[in-house]
Amino acid sequence: MKKLRIGLAGLGTVGKGVYDILQKDADLITRRSGAQLEIVAAFSRTKKDFLDPKIKFYSNASDFSNDPQIDVVVEVMGGLTTAKDLIIAAIKSGKKVVTANKALLAEQGVEIAKLVEENKGYIGFEASTAGANPIIKGFKEGFAANEITEFYATLNGTCNFILTKMRDETRDFFETLKEAQALGYAEADPVMDINGTDTAHKLVILGALASGSNPQFTKTYIEGIEKVTIEDVKIADQLGYKIKLLAIYRNLGDMLQQTVYPTLIKKSEKIAQTDGPYNAIVTLGSNSNWNVMIGRGAGGLTTGSAVVADIIDIACGRNTSPLFGVKCADLIEAKIMPISQRVGKYFLRLLVDKEMAQKTNLSKMIFGDKINVENAMFFDRENDILCGFITDAQKEEELLNVIKNLDSTLVKSVSFLRVESTNF
Amino acid sequence: MKKLRIGLAGLGTVGKGVYDILQKDADLITRRSGAQLEIVAAFSRTKKDFLDPKIKFYSNASDFSNDPQIDVVVEVMGGLTTAKDLIIAAIKSGKKVVTANKALLAEQGVEIAKLVEENKGYIGFEASTAGANPIIKGFKEGFAANEITEFYATLNGTCNFILTKMRDETRDFFETLKEAQALGYAEADPVMDINGTDTAHKLVILGALASGSNPQFTKTYIEGIEKVTIEDVKIADQLGYKIKLLAIYRNLGDMLQQTVYPTLIKKSEKIAQTDGPYNAIVTLGSNSNWNVMIGRGAGGLTTGSAVVADIIDIACGRNTSPLFGVKCADLIEAKIMPISQRVGKYFLRLLVDKEMAQKTNLSKMIFGDKINVENAMFFDRENDILCGFITDAQKEEELLNVIKNLDSTLVKSVSFLRVESTNF
Repeated sequence: MKKLRIGLAGLGTVGKGVYDILQKDADLITRRSGAQLEIVAAFSRTKKDFLDPKIKFYSNASDFSNDPQIDVVVEVMGGLTTAKDLIIAAIKSGKKVVTANKALLAEQGVEIAKLVEENKGYIGFEASTAGANPIIKGFKEGFAANEITEFYATLNGTCNFILTKMRDETRDFFETLKEAQALGYAEADPVMDINGTDTAHKLVILGALASGSNPQFTKTYIEGIEKVTIEDVKIADQLGYKIKLLAIYRNLGDMLQQTVYPTLIKKSEKIAQTDGPYNAIVTLGSNSNWNVMIGRGAGGLTTGSAVVADIIDIACGRNTSPLFGVKCADLIEAKIMPISQRVGKYFLRLLVDKEMAQKTNLSKMIFGDKINVENAMFFDRENDILCGFITDAQKEEELLNVIKNLDSTLVKSVSFLRVESTNF
Repeated sequence: MKKLRIGLAGLGTVGKGVYDILQKDADLITRRSGAQLEIVAAFSRTKKDFLDPKIKFYSNASDFSNDPQIDVVVEVMGGLTTAKDLIIAAIKSGKKVVTANKALLAEQGVEIAKLVEENKGYIGFEASTAGANPIIKGFKEGFAANEITEFYATLNGTCNFILTKMRDETRDFFETLKEAQALGYAEADPVMDINGTDTAHKLVILGALASGSNPQFTKTYIEGIEKVTIEDVKIADQLGYKIKLLAIYRNLGDMLQQTVYPTLIKKSEKIAQTDGPYNAIVTLGSNSNWNVMIGRGAGGLTTGSAVVADIIDIACGRNTSPLFGVKCADLIEAKIMPISQRVGKYFLRLLVDKEMAQKTNLSKMIFGDKINVENAMFFDRENDILCGFITDAQKEEELLNVIKNLDSTLVKSVSFLRVESTNF
């Protein structure tokens, strides 16, 4: 029987998940891969108790990467320093790689893809995006006969958990974040989750696969959920919307929309109905039409399931495709839409002076003819009126211009969120 | 540039879809496959006008299969006679095959799998099940590191369309069927769709992949939607349920549930929310946890998208796995649950004599202590009362025994449907 010798770099939640699956499901995996998958070496800063003592342990990354006993390096440490060096060394020494490292592929993917191509290597990265959802395989293989023209995705379990809790329990952002951390849904340092960076990494990877273009992280507009208030959530709810942190990709013809921001989305839409720790990806293919994938986005066994699927692919010889689906020379340099050019609806939250306001035609009083209001709600407070407006579709730079010129004696504060529809 | 020469067998809706995609998306497909995919030959009973005259046309299947110019035979004719001969001849002559033929793989899959293995061949069959949903790839590759313990699926667009229409427009079965046919959703001869056979074919294929066992069509319990009445749909709706034709797979430990029947399912469940022409598959993996895939189940371009994805897999060398995911020698012979052993809730629809019935404790009067009723509705009619009951979970053979012994002077008619929950 063929043997595939694995070096496991990273012994955290996902590393432990991969380890556990390879132990407990060894028979199943051998039947499906036609090979014995054996962890022969591990690398981590500190050794972990769960590790079988027969497994060679490295605390030096370079020694680990150059161990000739390893066929496949599984990198589940994350980060752009040691993890990157380790992957580069592994590819250069002819090893195959499986990684969950979304930051590396999104931010330095071109460099890595070229290296892989030069060395006739292979990197599987199903685990980088949407946990157990086989969406990387979907975009690279399942929908390969389609131009993917749009997709919408919730890709961060922490944000989805917090926004769901804020809505269901009308609790504020920080309180909910603390609970997410206590439950193990949010990292000890959740900044990258909360500020949208993690979602953007995954969006950029999917966007590169969808468009066959170089991954473009720096040009991706990113806004996190830090500024979403409990008032936003409540008013949105009453207007028939949920708030989700959405990764959005749209091929606009002359450029790509590739953005991350908290979004109001009608409750009736499939993507609005996916709450808590689930990731959803709603995709429009030119031939396949609409497709939805929903599944858990994080967790040791869940993400481990995606890692081991990639290892099985390698065992079965299904490791032939270029990193981003097309050869590096064929990757195009797509133009990315600046956020100022977005055309769509907006949700505006305003505090207006009560004395000055005449409630009956308040929208007109505030916006004049500059903004058409589709829907509005007003809440009386002691000294002011809290207003929620859904606007007609318009260009973002024009909206900002209107906001800048609002009568500041009437309007005490204003903030906005974007409104989206997947049409599915 | 590598060239892959395709022989297209079948020029109906799907054949035309494949043809159109390979023409209009040739550049995209070449970038993703690293090859030129060219239709060099076609087989059909009658030649079609859309066919480029440069393509060699065959009306003799055997001549077509033996054409040495063909690398990949795409079989989208369906059926168990000519299609089967054609596939066998293609595999024997060293060609790769891509097929949408669910009946052949479900009913004679073992024979075909053995032939493929003996000849070191390959058959891609993504298009056989759930249209553009990459669920075959999901089960064979994406979830390969999981034991799939349960799945629930709507796999027939015609049935889903009819049941959705019956509910939304309270129109009866035959009227709705006629509209489905007029709109092109239902075949001219829709018997295989309506009676559950088409759903069962797809279930059996997915079940074989999930369990690593021989496909077992003849032991699969199949019930269609012919007997679902508008009264069932209405009462179910008022009790909070939709009716769906569900393919159900459950690993019960000592045996597999593998059944097709119309099912009451709570409106809040994801699979109940997928209406009209969409197929949904809700899967529980031992490591991946719950996953849902939703997408269009039929149509030329939609199914064509799956066919062409399989051709691209072949072009990229991802055509290495055994037909049912594991080698023929490793396929087990699973025990299939007889329907009499099903344990679950039931929906009973009864007509009872009005004079004899005392409405206040009617449930007790009808069932005594034999059946616990969880929920009930009663509708007064001229001479009788129409009753809808949801029962507690119980074994089917026991329910049938109770029904057989109901007081026939009180109960004028009785019919039942099964109630299911995916717990997702």
